[in-house]
Amino acid sequence: MAEDFVFEDTVRIYDTDAQGVVHYAGYYRFFTDAAENFMRETLGISYPLLDNDTWFVVVESKAQYKKSARLGDNLSVVLRPKKLSRKALRFDFQILRNGELICDGYITQVAINKKEWKAVELPKVLLQKIDML
Amino acid sequence: MAEDFVFEDTVRIYDTDAQGVVHYAGYYRFFTDAAENFMRETLGISYPLLDNDTWFVVVESKAQYKKSARLGDNLSVVLRPKKLSRKALRFDFQILRNGELICDGYITQVAINKKEWKAVELPKVLLQKIDML
Amino acid sequence: MAEDFVFEDTVRIYDTDAQGVVHYAGYYRFFTDAAENFMRETLGISYPLLDNDTWFVVVESKAQYKKSARLGDNLSVVLRPKKLSRKALRFDFQILRNGELICDGYITQVAINKKEWKAVELPKVLLQKIDML
Amino acid sequence: MAEDFVFEDTVRIYDTDAQGVVHYAGYYRFFTDAAENFMRETLGISYPLLDNDTWFVVVESKAQYKKSARLGDNLSVVLRPKKLSRKALRFDFQILRNGELICDGYITQVAINKKEWKAVELPKVLLQKIDML
Repeated sequence: MAEDFVFEDTVRIYDTDAQGVVHYAGYYRFFTDAAENFMRETLGISYPLLDNDTWFVVVESKAQYKKSARLGDNLSVVLRPKKLSRKALRFDFQILRNGELICDGYITQVAINKKEWKAVELPKVLLQKIDML
Repeated sequence: MAEDFVFEDTVRIYDTDAQGVVHYAGYYRFFTDAAENFMRETLGISYPLLDNDTWFVVVESKAQYKKSARLGDNLSVVLRPKKLSRKALRFDFQILRNGELICDGYITQVAINKKEWKAVELPKVLLQKIDML
Repeated sequence: MAEDFVFEDTVRIYDTDAQGVVHYAGYYRFFTDAAENFMRETLGISYPLLDNDTWFVVVESKAQYKKSARLGDNLSVVLRPKKLSRKALRFDFQILRNGELICDGYITQVAINKKEWKAVELPKVLLQKIDML
Repeated sequence: MAEDFVFEDTVRIYDTDAQGVVHYAGYYRFFTDAAENFMRETLGISYPLLDNDTWFVVVESKAQYKKSARLGDNLSVVLRPKKLSRKALRFDFQILRNGELICDGYITQVAINKKEWKAVELPKVLLQKIDML
């Protein structure tokens, strides 16, 4: 059975707002950092780069907030990639604190040629990595 | 017939990223600013405050990206509030550039007593304002 | 005598952190927004663009925090431009709340040709505007 | 001779702007993250917390930008603490890429009792740690 890709992070002061908890839009930083780590491990390149000519562009994002995370909380961000088509990929995320679900959501992205800004196929090495998970 | 609440804004340099367009999570700034203007006009208080004892906490956020917004683009953010229950309210957003849809989405929020962090009923003046829209 | 350029803004929830006040790095948003408004009025173009070929790049930033600004505070950002050379310009800022100084600081920037990433002279129309202030 | 405290980080997509490089205010994230790591190692508590009753509040920040950092760049952030008084501490930072200086600057902070928002003395364990560096 597949193993999840897990990224560990800590709530920083700039993630929080005057409600004393992580700002709702701030959770997308954890999604982005997990995606960046997954892509670096898979392709050796910095998200949202796929290769020198190809970018991911995000076409949808969603988050559901179950519990409030606070300054200094240690969070585990679980990433599960899901191939939607030859050109589109969704990353599903679960953010856990001590095993308890804090937030889940996803970002959906399409591969494009960055000069022409047109959809292209996902790199094979990425698809192979996803099949192995 | 109801009129929409519209908030005008401009894409700033800090909204963009190295792809040359607004960062996907940056669109939530436009959502937040429109909500803040709507709430200020309705309750005379700064979002996410509802009154001195009551806060909105966001329980869900979503955005779909149709076109890419760039530095200096003038955007119209249309806000439509939707009462989900006596305690929960959704703001639906459409972001337009020259009448063309760039992005849509929503944030769903629940009123809470900020000391006890427990759900409470939405202020009547807010519900009345929403009924009038 | 010269008139100051003044930009009005409000503290938003995303400007604040869990200390209940504006995050120290968040004050640079107010500096940037004032610069953006000044440049739009002067050159009709979005900061940090100077014209289609020319960008400002920031080479120094500084802020001193005197008082803490809170959610919903109405702030006046006073901008005073200072020509340092034919290629470099400093914007001095004072952020006031009800006439009281909250924060002051500056950003220093150099005009560059954005393709060659080399310093060039500031646009004449900008220098003329600054002389008139 | 004292050893420097060094924190390693990577430029993420949200650090950059449409100029293709790290946004000037974005470098303060690297300063904050280095401070957070230093304080965690020293006091075992999340910056800007000093202990349960005491916070750091930033009273000054400055950065000078020498070179432009880009997406994926691996940065070393060197932190050197400097005691200014019994209540105030400055962190000096140098951000290096492959040994080359990209940016330097500092943040100065004062310890306060977070309920009374009044200056208090720095914790002894922190001062001892600084003397050892």
